[in-house]
Amino acid sequence: MASDWGQFLHLQIFGESHGPGIGVVMEGLPAGEQIDLPALQEFLRRRAPGQGKYATTRKETDAPEFLSGLLDGCTTGSPLTALIRNSDTRSSDYAALRDVPRPGHADYSAEKRYHGAQDGRGGGHFSGRLTAPLCVAGGIAKQILERRGIYVGAHLASVGAVHDRSFEPVSLTVQELLAPGKASFPVLDPAAGEAMQQAIQEALAQQDSLGGRIEAAALGVPAGWGSPIFAGVENRLAAILFGIPAVRGIEFGYGMAAAELRGSEHNDPFTIDAAGAVRTVSNHHGGILGGITTGMPIIVKLAIKPTPSIAREQASVSLSAKAPAVLAVRGRHDPCIAPRAVPVVEAALAVALLDLALEAKTYQN
Amino acid sequence: MASDWGQFLHLQIFGESHGPGIGVVMEGLPAGEQIDLPALQEFLRRRAPGQGKYATTRKETDAPEFLSGLLDGCTTGSPLTALIRNSDTRSSDYAALRDVPRPGHADYSAEKRYHGAQDGRGGGHFSGRLTAPLCVAGGIAKQILERRGIYVGAHLASVGAVHDRSFEPVSLTVQELLAPGKASFPVLDPAAGEAMQQAIQEALAQQDSLGGRIEAAALGVPAGWGSPIFAGVENRLAAILFGIPAVRGIEFGYGMAAAELRGSEHNDPFTIDAAGAVRTVSNHHGGILGGITTGMPIIVKLAIKPTPSIAREQASVSLSAKAPAVLAVRGRHDPCIAPRAVPVVEAALAVALLDLALEAKTYQN
Amino acid sequence: MASDWGQFLHLQIFGESHGPGIGVVMEGLPAGEQIDLPALQEFLRRRAPGQGKYATTRKETDAPEFLSGLLDGCTTGSPLTALIRNSDTRSSDYAALRDVPRPGHADYSAEKRYHGAQDGRGGGHFSGRLTAPLCVAGGIAKQILERRGIYVGAHLASVGAVHDRSFEPVSLTVQELLAPGKASFPVLDPAAGEAMQQAIQEALAQQDSLGGRIEAAALGVPAGWGSPIFAGVENRLAAILFGIPAVRGIEFGYGMAAAELRGSEHNDPFTIDAAGAVRTVSNHHGGILGGITTGMPIIVKLAIKPTPSIAREQASVSLSAKAPAVLAVRGRHDPCIAPRAVPVVEAALAVALLDLALEAKTYQN
Amino acid sequence: MASDWGQFLHLQIFGESHGPGIGVVMEGLPAGEQIDLPALQEFLRRRAPGQGKYATTRKETDAPEFLSGLLDGCTTGSPLTALIRNSDTRSSDYAALRDVPRPGHADYSAEKRYHGAQDGRGGGHFSGRLTAPLCVAGGIAKQILERRGIYVGAHLASVGAVHDRSFEPVSLTVQELLAPGKASFPVLDPAAGEAMQQAIQEALAQQDSLGGRIEAAALGVPAGWGSPIFAGVENRLAAILFGIPAVRGIEFGYGMAAAELRGSEHNDPFTIDAAGAVRTVSNHHGGILGGITTGMPIIVKLAIKPTPSIAREQASVSLSAKAPAVLAVRGRHDPCIAPRAVPVVEAALAVALLDLALEAKTYQN
Repeated sequence: MASDWGQFLHLQIFGESHGPGIGVVMEGLPAGEQIDLPALQEFLRRRAPGQGKYATTRKETDAPEFLSGLLDGCTTGSPLTALIRNSDTRSSDYAALRDVPRPGHADYSAEKRYHGAQDGRGGGHFSGRLTAPLCVAGGIAKQILERRGIYVGAHLASVGAVHDRSFEPVSLTVQELLAPGKASFPVLDPAAGEAMQQAIQEALAQQDSLGGRIEAAALGVPAGWGSPIFAGVENRLAAILFGIPAVRGIEFGYGMAAAELRGSEHNDPFTIDAAGAVRTVSNHHGGILGGITTGMPIIVKLAIKPTPSIAREQASVSLSAKAPAVLAVRGRHDPCIAPRAVPVVEAALAVALLDLALEAKTYQN
Repeated sequence: MASDWGQFLHLQIFGESHGPGIGVVMEGLPAGEQIDLPALQEFLRRRAPGQGKYATTRKETDAPEFLSGLLDGCTTGSPLTALIRNSDTRSSDYAALRDVPRPGHADYSAEKRYHGAQDGRGGGHFSGRLTAPLCVAGGIAKQILERRGIYVGAHLASVGAVHDRSFEPVSLTVQELLAPGKASFPVLDPAAGEAMQQAIQEALAQQDSLGGRIEAAALGVPAGWGSPIFAGVENRLAAILFGIPAVRGIEFGYGMAAAELRGSEHNDPFTIDAAGAVRTVSNHHGGILGGITTGMPIIVKLAIKPTPSIAREQASVSLSAKAPAVLAVRGRHDPCIAPRAVPVVEAALAVALLDLALEAKTYQN
Repeated sequence: MASDWGQFLHLQIFGESHGPGIGVVMEGLPAGEQIDLPALQEFLRRRAPGQGKYATTRKETDAPEFLSGLLDGCTTGSPLTALIRNSDTRSSDYAALRDVPRPGHADYSAEKRYHGAQDGRGGGHFSGRLTAPLCVAGGIAKQILERRGIYVGAHLASVGAVHDRSFEPVSLTVQELLAPGKASFPVLDPAAGEAMQQAIQEALAQQDSLGGRIEAAALGVPAGWGSPIFAGVENRLAAILFGIPAVRGIEFGYGMAAAELRGSEHNDPFTIDAAGAVRTVSNHHGGILGGITTGMPIIVKLAIKPTPSIAREQASVSLSAKAPAVLAVRGRHDPCIAPRAVPVVEAALAVALLDLALEAKTYQN
Repeated sequence: MASDWGQFLHLQIFGESHGPGIGVVMEGLPAGEQIDLPALQEFLRRRAPGQGKYATTRKETDAPEFLSGLLDGCTTGSPLTALIRNSDTRSSDYAALRDVPRPGHADYSAEKRYHGAQDGRGGGHFSGRLTAPLCVAGGIAKQILERRGIYVGAHLASVGAVHDRSFEPVSLTVQELLAPGKASFPVLDPAAGEAMQQAIQEALAQQDSLGGRIEAAALGVPAGWGSPIFAGVENRLAAILFGIPAVRGIEFGYGMAAAELRGSEHNDPFTIDAAGAVRTVSNHHGGILGGITTGMPIIVKLAIKPTPSIAREQASVSLSAKAPAVLAVRGRHDPCIAPRAVPVVEAALAVALLDLALEAKTYQN
């Protein structure tokens, strides 16, 4: 439809940034799954604003209330609904933006889409805040997947020109996969993390913002998941990952750079490992061939554009006056949204993998 | 489901490479649209194999038979079905591949997905040949869109290390957009095209293959198309574009490189043009903000991996023997599939835009 | 998926009878529609329990809180979410039912469906209480439809052996259509209503319950709405109407009795009315031919089974002991649920018609 | 969408009565299922026209060609496509109907739906002929279900005022279930069948037609299939069964008559059978409670209206002249379509049950 996703595990996201609340309805969850609510809250904390040196100072605990689908912490199999109340909203910050759309934001395109009826306060339904319910869904999916031996993790691959090292595509371990999520800054290499934070601080000092890249991976996914053509793993991951605001590109395996290789370089030779399992020697294919998993680590990268809300003056237009206007965005904004997007990417990946897992049950013997 | 796509314009692709035929059912087409069948055939010719110096020598005319939905060349509004018969198939080429999966192909993952029941001949349902019915659908969608002032085009942005110049992101004209489709090789810069063909020839001489990139664009799409979160233009384009075999990454606007910019660089200032319309001065956003079109040119790039079927020997395994095996792929394969993928990308983009156009009718006043 | 419905207007129902709350997310609503909230509340009052002489004594105001999608009472076009908190629940009434399923209820089938993880309290997600959010959705849809000249109404056609007169199938007026909804008991003929209430009282006195039939109609729907084969008006209405618990059969126009007629009797001759419009002389077809509306009144009837929860003793089994058990259902139950189901049928019909209206915009010139 | 159905097993029907061909694409079929093609053809023969004394004299063998998804008679798991060519069409019979719509047919409503672009020849996409591909799908589904111990059957419950006896709702055997399908006329009681054929002959002699009812049942469906609210078994069966032209009503279990019973009469007491299984003593619920199967026989009835095409003169209008017109339908039409609809109902039921079976795999442990 639009703010929903998934055929086997179905999410319906709702809410506006400065409305009463935001949330998600999940349908298709297996019944009888015990959810560790403190662990879920800890996962949500990784996305929550207001905690870092350089992050937005908007404070929100993002503690979901479960309206349905959970009984004594256990999934009932009926739609699970989580509601996060909005609070600490300062809509007056956004009052002037109605007429003068912010460059890089959905203000103008939403105005045309909804004929002016949209709730534009704080970005409304287009706000990055809507990733909080996605994280609730993903945090639940992660727990269910881990119980089945499937692990999802991500790290900040770059901020501006500063790069973290990459996940090891063939021999990635669960420990390495989960390490960035446990670190104070979501990177593999702490020195890179320090340099990234430094770069963010510099951008902020110049009333500017920075973009970044995220690399995510999944371990434990068996070979044979996914469906052909339009329901391949890439199609479904991309369809959910582009639901994260500010994502501008998505790559699987060797990604865009695959275009520069020869077949003899890019092809991953098959081999039999010590346990008798089929593996590939390299993993340029990122765990997916023909849209179907191969049993190798799934690897996806995406680019997050620099936060469009910056304090310095920008050129825009007055829609009412049909004339140029200058705008300086006030309000509280992360100078780089990518660090907080890391758990969101994990969440989206986990939701997609649980959807794939449920589908796989339909065709397994 | 899997081999279908679209909520408002719905495609169902069917067929296997060496089965009786391949085709598509399209539902949701506007009734009463006259289809120019020779023009459609000319569009299909751009994808068809067997015509270039370096392309596969498999000869197929890919002339669709319309089984339903067309009456006197005019859409009836009922499901339109196009069937392309397979012919000139040489399945014996593939007989040995059953046990020894080709690196970079879906042979192994499909084996796990379908428990060995899949039609593996020529890649079966995973074959690039399945892009022919997508082109039928896209060619029809293109004609309907053009009647409404919307134009779709694409060109080969790179092959290996050779690059074409890019579409002009702000001032792109319909003439420039459509030029590569009319050229003998789908590029903007003929010299680049010559160099690309040279590079492909060299790869072939070395029993190898090459990847490439495609840039596509659409002109004439009004502001306000698309829906939030999971039904944004990027989500829907990605979900259909990853249905083209060998696509490894997709970028919108400034794409992956957006991660390296600052907000002050990446943001596209709004302006009012001479006709009083809202435009942006630059177009890093690729015509899409918040998943909704802005009225600027839509720009998308994607990477095509090098053809995995190469003549030189590669390491693989015997699935039955659970032992290493060496494989040299025979059969007729393009040393670079990207040139033939150009019209396929146009087709997918056109189908997605017609779907978006139909959706837009539901919320327009 | 399951608790969702609709392609163009999409509903997601959530909640369990004795959980924190129940609700609905609606996506696809036109933006900018002012909702008359007191009128909506008045519509909900028609379904609410605890008001009639013979109705359940459970008291609930069913006042929805709008969590998203409404700004100053006006639809924003984003998902609209309504939450109704549960209160006055007495779960102890249901504790013993876990092991001994109630005849005629979903207790046993849900136990098998969810492996015992379902929230069985008060019927959980299968409770008739879940029709409250459907009424919120329908009440909103009704207001939007009426603004476009489309009216929906229903009445209690029978209770046990007592029958109301039928809607006039050809010359039904808006006034007659809406009259039952304004009456203290939802019938056309007050004397029939008195006799129905008498019959319900007698059943209750005998610790028993009664079934009933509902006839619903819509006026103002233009010719040409609906789609062929599986998306006909009947298919879509049936798919939503069977979402109302206790519905056992659905008929359109002359319904099951059409099987007893000859073609010369059942066919409705076409004619031209005084205004030059095509009409039918009779309306056995109930406003739908080939799944597509004809512009005549849409007429649908459905049967509501007698409330399965009755106070007298019934034979059941102990699932744990695998042995016969006797059960007398306690708790507060309507001896006839049909009167309260009348606005629910209207709601479902209104939701379906708004979905059809949005679809019709996609194929209208 | 429209001419497609199903979430887990997905059908896409295509074609027009007098176009090149009709067919179906099925996606989601289990891979590796051997299809007995002669048995499938025998099933199709039960629906085919031109064989009975009183049936239409249009001759068509309805032998499907399988374009994809079958390899050596075995499902590949990819979309299975069956094409039935049209032949022996006499479009001139229908030429005059364009302007003067046939009472009881979709001619007028389709004209409004498609703005005159529809293929109206022989009813086009609305023709009963489109049930042939549904039978191909259903015949395949039946074979797959039977391999899992699930059987589907149906019989003609009535024609006009002549009634067959009903299936025994509690103790129905597979033998009785399948008997009507093996008989020369699809009834349980041969004497009733004779009387029905007599009644049809009389109607035909009077240039008239007759309606009828069909009762269908399924055995072997385990308890716990289906999903709540809008994805209950009734919702899904109704959504596919109303895809059969001329169906005017659908009832489950005791059906419309449930409205006349008391709860103490309608409730089906639970019991434990000799094998220790939970059963119900009676089966008014038709094997479905709360939209979920109970393990008892599933029983559904539906009404087929009298064939609207009758030879005697009928009143209609000239759409162009906006004036009354008289019409006598020529062409070859069954005076009672219900006998040929019996296998179509079986087919739809089988397709729906296979969809439910695939869904059940997603939530079973």
